[in-house]
Amino acid sequence: MIVVLKHGVTEEKKQQLIAWLQALGLRIHISDGEFQTVLGLIGDTSSVDIDLVESLEIVDSVKRVTEPFKCCNRKFHPESLVVEIGDVKVGAGNFAMIAGPCSVESEEQIVSVAKSVKAAGATMLRGGAFKPRTSPYDFAGLKAEGLELLKIARKETGLPIVTELMNIMDLPLFDDVDVIQVGARNMQNFDLLRELGRLDKPILLKRGLANTLKELLMSAEYIMANGNERVMLCERGIRTFSDYTRNTLDLAAVPMLHQLTHLPVIVDPSHATGIAKLVPPMALAATAGGADGLIIEVHNDPIHALCDGAQSLRPEEFAELAEKVRSIRGIVA
Amino acid sequence: MIVVLKHGVTEEKKQQLIAWLQALGLRIHISDGEFQTVLGLIGDTSSVDIDLVESLEIVDSVKRVTEPFKCCNRKFHPESLVVEIGDVKVGAGNFAMIAGPCSVESEEQIVSVAKSVKAAGATMLRGGAFKPRTSPYDFAGLKAEGLELLKIARKETGLPIVTELMNIMDLPLFDDVDVIQVGARNMQNFDLLRELGRLDKPILLKRGLANTLKELLMSAEYIMANGNERVMLCERGIRTFSDYTRNTLDLAAVPMLHQLTHLPVIVDPSHATGIAKLVPPMALAATAGGADGLIIEVHNDPIHALCDGAQSLRPEEFAELAEKVRSIRGIVA
Amino acid sequence: MIVVLKHGVTEEKKQQLIAWLQALGLRIHISDGEFQTVLGLIGDTSSVDIDLVESLEIVDSVKRVTEPFKCCNRKFHPESLVVEIGDVKVGAGNFAMIAGPCSVESEEQIVSVAKSVKAAGATMLRGGAFKPRTSPYDFAGLKAEGLELLKIARKETGLPIVTELMNIMDLPLFDDVDVIQVGARNMQNFDLLRELGRLDKPILLKRGLANTLKELLMSAEYIMANGNERVMLCERGIRTFSDYTRNTLDLAAVPMLHQLTHLPVIVDPSHATGIAKLVPPMALAATAGGADGLIIEVHNDPIHALCDGAQSLRPEEFAELAEKVRSIRGIVA
Amino acid sequence: MIVVLKHGVTEEKKQQLIAWLQALGLRIHISDGEFQTVLGLIGDTSSVDIDLVESLEIVDSVKRVTEPFKCCNRKFHPESLVVEIGDVKVGAGNFAMIAGPCSVESEEQIVSVAKSVKAAGATMLRGGAFKPRTSPYDFAGLKAEGLELLKIARKETGLPIVTELMNIMDLPLFDDVDVIQVGARNMQNFDLLRELGRLDKPILLKRGLANTLKELLMSAEYIMANGNERVMLCERGIRTFSDYTRNTLDLAAVPMLHQLTHLPVIVDPSHATGIAKLVPPMALAATAGGADGLIIEVHNDPIHALCDGAQSLRPEEFAELAEKVRSIRGIVA
Repeated sequence: MIVVLKHGVTEEKKQQLIAWLQALGLRIHISDGEFQTVLGLIGDTSSVDIDLVESLEIVDSVKRVTEPFKCCNRKFHPESLVVEIGDVKVGAGNFAMIAGPCSVESEEQIVSVAKSVKAAGATMLRGGAFKPRTSPYDFAGLKAEGLELLKIARKETGLPIVTELMNIMDLPLFDDVDVIQVGARNMQNFDLLRELGRLDKPILLKRGLANTLKELLMSAEYIMANGNERVMLCERGIRTFSDYTRNTLDLAAVPMLHQLTHLPVIVDPSHATGIAKLVPPMALAATAGGADGLIIEVHNDPIHALCDGAQSLRPEEFAELAEKVRSIRGIVA
Repeated sequence: MIVVLKHGVTEEKKQQLIAWLQALGLRIHISDGEFQTVLGLIGDTSSVDIDLVESLEIVDSVKRVTEPFKCCNRKFHPESLVVEIGDVKVGAGNFAMIAGPCSVESEEQIVSVAKSVKAAGATMLRGGAFKPRTSPYDFAGLKAEGLELLKIARKETGLPIVTELMNIMDLPLFDDVDVIQVGARNMQNFDLLRELGRLDKPILLKRGLANTLKELLMSAEYIMANGNERVMLCERGIRTFSDYTRNTLDLAAVPMLHQLTHLPVIVDPSHATGIAKLVPPMALAATAGGADGLIIEVHNDPIHALCDGAQSLRPEEFAELAEKVRSIRGIVA
Repeated sequence: MIVVLKHGVTEEKKQQLIAWLQALGLRIHISDGEFQTVLGLIGDTSSVDIDLVESLEIVDSVKRVTEPFKCCNRKFHPESLVVEIGDVKVGAGNFAMIAGPCSVESEEQIVSVAKSVKAAGATMLRGGAFKPRTSPYDFAGLKAEGLELLKIARKETGLPIVTELMNIMDLPLFDDVDVIQVGARNMQNFDLLRELGRLDKPILLKRGLANTLKELLMSAEYIMANGNERVMLCERGIRTFSDYTRNTLDLAAVPMLHQLTHLPVIVDPSHATGIAKLVPPMALAATAGGADGLIIEVHNDPIHALCDGAQSLRPEEFAELAEKVRSIRGIVA
Repeated sequence: MIVVLKHGVTEEKKQQLIAWLQALGLRIHISDGEFQTVLGLIGDTSSVDIDLVESLEIVDSVKRVTEPFKCCNRKFHPESLVVEIGDVKVGAGNFAMIAGPCSVESEEQIVSVAKSVKAAGATMLRGGAFKPRTSPYDFAGLKAEGLELLKIARKETGLPIVTELMNIMDLPLFDDVDVIQVGARNMQNFDLLRELGRLDKPILLKRGLANTLKELLMSAEYIMANGNERVMLCERGIRTFSDYTRNTLDLAAVPMLHQLTHLPVIVDPSHATGIAKLVPPMALAATAGGADGLIIEVHNDPIHALCDGAQSLRPEEFAELAEKVRSIRGIVA
């Protein structure tokens, strides 16, 4: 950590600060320049409150030199991580194609969608049983029953299942789920993350609506620091001034995350755009941009089929997309 | 709800859509214009998925006419709500002055701060026992012990206590807390909100970092729809491109919320700015802008006293500010 | 335009509003619902001030049904536009590969870069002669001399030249430039746009840092309404809370713009990210997402070669990228 | 400027970088830490391209220690600036109350509004003659005629006039204008700023929709570096995800700018919110937060009077507000 002092600081105040920092167990390297003094803090600075130091009257600014994340830092893990879910591998050249309906609605629906996405090349099945809803009056998912239906679909197709957990108290119900998804709204539900760190099960961690990449990595760190290293990150759009799509898909996050961490990065073009017609071009873009996988909403519900779901593809649209994704993988992988 | 159809839609498709909407229990008012047909949906449209309808091939756009929130809607509650916490009242002309340290650190600290903020005119005591921290390696609060220390400070001063709950499972520990705070990161932790709706205890609900006012009100609705109507809203800064302060305090939210809802609106200038020097001007601005109260960080810890805390005021600074707040209340209240 | 009146409006006020709207030359279609009255405005609403109507005391909300742009609206121009620059075509399946240095520095530099990007498959040469700089103390380009050097490079390679105009008064200098670029900061310099509308020369219009797609299209409309229909749009990143890249590349804008307009859409991954290592993945992503072309910074300056330019590719990196772009075009075009 | 090198950099590459920096005329202070080497760059670093240095393969990160602005930097001008416009003073305790209609429409209108705002205590008259409009089909102001009408209103009331210039070529028309306003969209029209720097006339510089405080100050620097030091800054709302108001008023910018610069800071609550009902609370908030003045839209047009203008106050509303503003000034000034 580097601390730049203000011009004209008295020697006494400077020494007070240095003594305080030394009391935190740090060694201080002092560099007196023409216009300012710079302190280099050497030792374990992870417990230093950067905002507090920056607020000191004699301090001009502070800069952290080492990242605050360790378990998920590529510097310490140069090899890309491969997450294994049964026979399915994700990361380091292994591409995940996760597809399924937004919500599990019935056995017939989930089994039928599962079969068609499998035929189209999906490697995992997604489907919401516990649904976070902005309004208390909206349908919140089939809950435990939805999980059972997912397991039936898995039995019929062999596809591992990915589904969202919203609440620590529901954890026992997820014992037989293959991948637990943490939704965007729970990315900083720290107690939940800690608990997931104690499991022996892969986690799909979605980026929050307004969270930086560093915050996403710190949330992965919560899981990994508690022992569970099988974390997959997911970019699903951020909130910006731009309102023609539900969110703004931040695709540059994919190569940037690949520089910062060894964890696989999945992209969710369905939630990022909220508009079915934009899903195929953004899925192809994510693939060309180096994503390690896609998670895509697919349905075959009759009303939807009649009317076109807001952000879901029909099975035949998904099949056509999956074909192109494979071609692009052939070029960029 | 108003549905505008695309130009040149076939009569058959139009009738299909109308039949589908009628099947949802709605009456449809058809208005054929020169360039487009407009459908007016009459009845309970709260269960209509607006995104789905908007995604239909024949639909140009959709507009919701009635807000999706009811319990917290000023239309149905023209009188401003007064929340009572013991003898303390908040809202409808009653101004809340909530002050205290970011974290409870020791009995000496919390009692001493409580006494000084009371002397300066605070009406409630804040203090964190369970602290959400971005990094798993940071201090996460004294937890249960912190709650006990808050109660001691309450006993010494008579100030009701306000403190954050992060996790439903900790709820039994909060039995004797006066006001439960929901932090910005938990604003859309819907299971938590639902549980708080079953309590007979005031809730201070903070706006999330990237949440709209409508989303904030829908979260209040979660609590109120479950029976607990004593909700206070809190504006504490939103995340924008602007990076010189930790967040951007959105003060226009105060008068806007007053138009939309009858709930009191508190402002937190400490977290909104993250910089102690900006707290007094923003506290005064919030007061002049019509806020129903302030929640402000105050500490008297010796290291902080030496060094000036990042966003906390010293007791004497708080006292000076409180004086000016009262003068401004005299003008705008 | 649809105007929703508030619940409980008096008949007198309603009639006043209707009379006022009729005085603007509109016909009014009244639809009285259970809970509200909806007015449909028929006729040319382009001159109605939507904010003013929305602010009326008796009005709940207003919705524009027809887009305010006409010249660039795909509804009226279903065929994608092909912009021709000499033999080079852009749009409707014709892909533009525009490359060159950020600034023109010397004849040797620009000619050498032009030759290498041409060899790699570039179809146009970019290079800044007039440079917008945040600081008045920074190098602002070679200006007129830079334009002359670009023309020399064009003569040597045959590549049409694309370069930025910042100021109407410099327009005479741009007579012999092939494509005039409007920078992000000038996207709403309306006097400049109007002037460019009087030229017979293609314009590359960059999206502003915080402008919506509708605003971008309205700026294109300024140019086209004045007679010049040869406009190419350019997505180059928007400003968001995310600060690890200079801007956030909004790739979903590409398919969305293709729905809204018949104009070609170019993507600039260099300015969008500001980081050379992110340029190739984002260039490939843009191609896979359906862009009609790319504009990429390439340099071969020795100091840069030694040190790696902030966002510029070296010629050999560009050649490798161009190869992959062509392969992806083979899949998505 | 401080340059942090990556861990494990070879001595050869380090020496290459140092030699390159020395060639730029800088002295280099080397500080070898346990985990990284830090270079302190001493001398005039204003011409060093921070992005370029940060992009070097061996560099981890770069931090600028001195701000890039000088003329408007409070460090070098500890006394707050007083801008004098005839007898009117702004800054350092002198509060500006600027009021008037959005657009100048007729002699009757502008003279009448001018008289009423003067009676209510306004110190300057605003009114748009050249209006930036998003759509080419909208009314763009009375232009030269509007300027003449403003001068008539000035003659009738004695109020100095403030009006927007959009284009260098119109400058001759503004000779007899008292304060030239630079609109948000022109904040980075660098050629225009440079030209205004050559005038002997106060400039009101509005912050762009998505510009940081540093960028605002750099734009002030453009004007001041060319010789004109009479610059007033204006916060008028920034663009965020929040869409219930037109923009998000960033009031913390006021005290923050006061720390960074000695220039006066004016607040425009009318454009910041776009909603007349929010203007008085935000005007009071800005005053309490320490603004050096307000610029507020006031009209008395009969249609507006009938219907309530979108963001304009009626003269009597303005008079009531002005009264409260003075009371709050009595507390905070």
